[in-house]
Amino acid sequence: MVAGSVRKFWLALAVALFLLAPQGAVAADDPLPSWNEGPAKAAILDFVGKVTEEGSPAFVPETERIAVFDNDGTLWPENPMPFQAAFAVDEIRRLAEEDPKLKEDPPVAALLAGDMAKLLAGPHHDGLMRILALTHAGLTTDEFRARVSDWIASATHPRFGVAYDKLTYEPMQEVLRYLRANGFKTYIVSGGGADFMRVWSERVYGVPSEQVVGSTAQVVYELRETGPVLVKTFQHLFVDDKAGKPAGIHAFIGKRPIAAFGNSDGDKEMLEYVTIANPHPSLGVIVRHTDAEREYQYDVNPKSSGTLDEALKAAPERGWIIVSMKDDWNRIFAAH
Amino acid sequence: MVAGSVRKFWLALAVALFLLAPQGAVAADDPLPSWNEGPAKAAILDFVGKVTEEGSPAFVPETERIAVFDNDGTLWPENPMPFQAAFAVDEIRRLAEEDPKLKEDPPVAALLAGDMAKLLAGPHHDGLMRILALTHAGLTTDEFRARVSDWIASATHPRFGVAYDKLTYEPMQEVLRYLRANGFKTYIVSGGGADFMRVWSERVYGVPSEQVVGSTAQVVYELRETGPVLVKTFQHLFVDDKAGKPAGIHAFIGKRPIAAFGNSDGDKEMLEYVTIANPHPSLGVIVRHTDAEREYQYDVNPKSSGTLDEALKAAPERGWIIVSMKDDWNRIFAAH
Repeated sequence: MVAGSVRKFWLALAVALFLLAPQGAVAADDPLPSWNEGPAKAAILDFVGKVTEEGSPAFVPETERIAVFDNDGTLWPENPMPFQAAFAVDEIRRLAEEDPKLKEDPPVAALLAGDMAKLLAGPHHDGLMRILALTHAGLTTDEFRARVSDWIASATHPRFGVAYDKLTYEPMQEVLRYLRANGFKTYIVSGGGADFMRVWSERVYGVPSEQVVGSTAQVVYELRETGPVLVKTFQHLFVDDKAGKPAGIHAFIGKRPIAAFGNSDGDKEMLEYVTIANPHPSLGVIVRHTDAEREYQYDVNPKSSGTLDEALKAAPERGWIIVSMKDDWNRIFAAH
Repeated sequence: MVAGSVRKFWLALAVALFLLAPQGAVAADDPLPSWNEGPAKAAILDFVGKVTEEGSPAFVPETERIAVFDNDGTLWPENPMPFQAAFAVDEIRRLAEEDPKLKEDPPVAALLAGDMAKLLAGPHHDGLMRILALTHAGLTTDEFRARVSDWIASATHPRFGVAYDKLTYEPMQEVLRYLRANGFKTYIVSGGGADFMRVWSERVYGVPSEQVVGSTAQVVYELRETGPVLVKTFQHLFVDDKAGKPAGIHAFIGKRPIAAFGNSDGDKEMLEYVTIANPHPSLGVIVRHTDAEREYQYDVNPKSSGTLDEALKAAPERGWIIVSMKDDWNRIFAAH
């Protein structure tokens, strides 16, 4: 009888574990735990499910599983200004300390005085271009890498008070990992500078430098006594934004991706290129900034970077998925 | 006694197999069977051995194992002219048949008359540029891909009488496969057009389009009724040759490779960039055309593409390995 009771106890425990197990297993297996259940999450899971199912008519071979992600506003915030602009501002302050004469340079004076109107004046934003040239050209790629590396290790975001690279969106990190676990190659395709992003893309997103497509300018090769260097210039600027994004994808990758994630009108042409008349099934996703409390809320706001207007209007016709940060994400930042 | 004899027989057989096995196994395991034993083969095997040996001071992690290969003259011939030039000539002939007025265009007339001096005249080779613009611009990337695909499926090499893509060097195909089997990412870094090479690079070399760095020009995005297209132009030409090669490697890959294979002075800067003051161990290899019988023999010859002069002179000081096609390769072409 005692033996029987013990057996019954173990049997009951086994049954209980068996009943509990599936639920636990499902939760543990959810590749997108920071996403609330809803149409956006379902669309991503469905897409990945069908293109990876061998024998399915929607199956896509691994060599064609290319997914492209905008960075600013899609993988991390772009307010109160794009992080690379914050880098340029901090660099100008640092350089002006080192060389006070620089403070007499009109665009530098405008920047130090916070006169953004003056910086952005003119059809070619000459002031802003001067700031970018001062901080992004005339030095070797190795020197530039060291400066970006120093900055990202020391600067903090004005609102969130943490290092900029701690502000990546955890739900998007989950998407990056989920896609890679399913045989996708994940690329960043951003208006940001390729040299800026490649300093930290592998560490922060698991995206190696060769999978970063960004804005570029000519570099000039020199063989110095210490070894070969590439000197950054501000000539032959390629801006990887708007119609530049499909061009950049073609130049760097040479094939059409099957999934694209963006957040602004700068991503509209990339979303078109990926989702319209693609011989493979495709997925277009727009991350919409709807959460003033946890992040930012804006579609069209002259004080915010990243206007979302035309791409949002085009979304229903194109079948692009709209992700509401407020409603679809139960967590924004991993560390926050 | 009979049982003992049988046992002895099996024992002798086993011993014989054991004695024979290592030799057989080594031969079967040779990753470079088309290479004769010698310093060039040994240098390649030694390099790969040491950078892949965990715990060795020369160990290089997989993410840094990038190997770059010139194409024309390094992976396949570049005579009597680079294969892409042969494509342009054949295209001009085809286009002139379709549109006879084109025959009145002076550079086209010069080409059809075989007047190369006229085509190459002037500091900017305006005639040749016109030929390239006629055959490489003003059409979509999809249309261009189809033309290259048609050409490579139908054209034959004037000397060897086989399709151009049957003329890859088997010893170099072995190196590509050997490096990939050892965790390397293999890239083509060539003066040839990226759009031209990407049509067949994966099929012919196992190098996917995203690992092809080549010459490029601006493409312009258009959303047509049939879908998005990229129209090839001849603006903003980037020539991936000489000092352009380190610049192209930086733009596309964003890190320094640890192995480079070239064959001409156009590869000198790439070899420098890879092998001088590289924080990792590195390998530089020059394929030298020394075999007039099986392929071509030239270092400096005005009638041959691919001058090898300065790079050859620099090789001893730089420690670059010289491969003699005649002496180091027991086979040149797989199908030949």
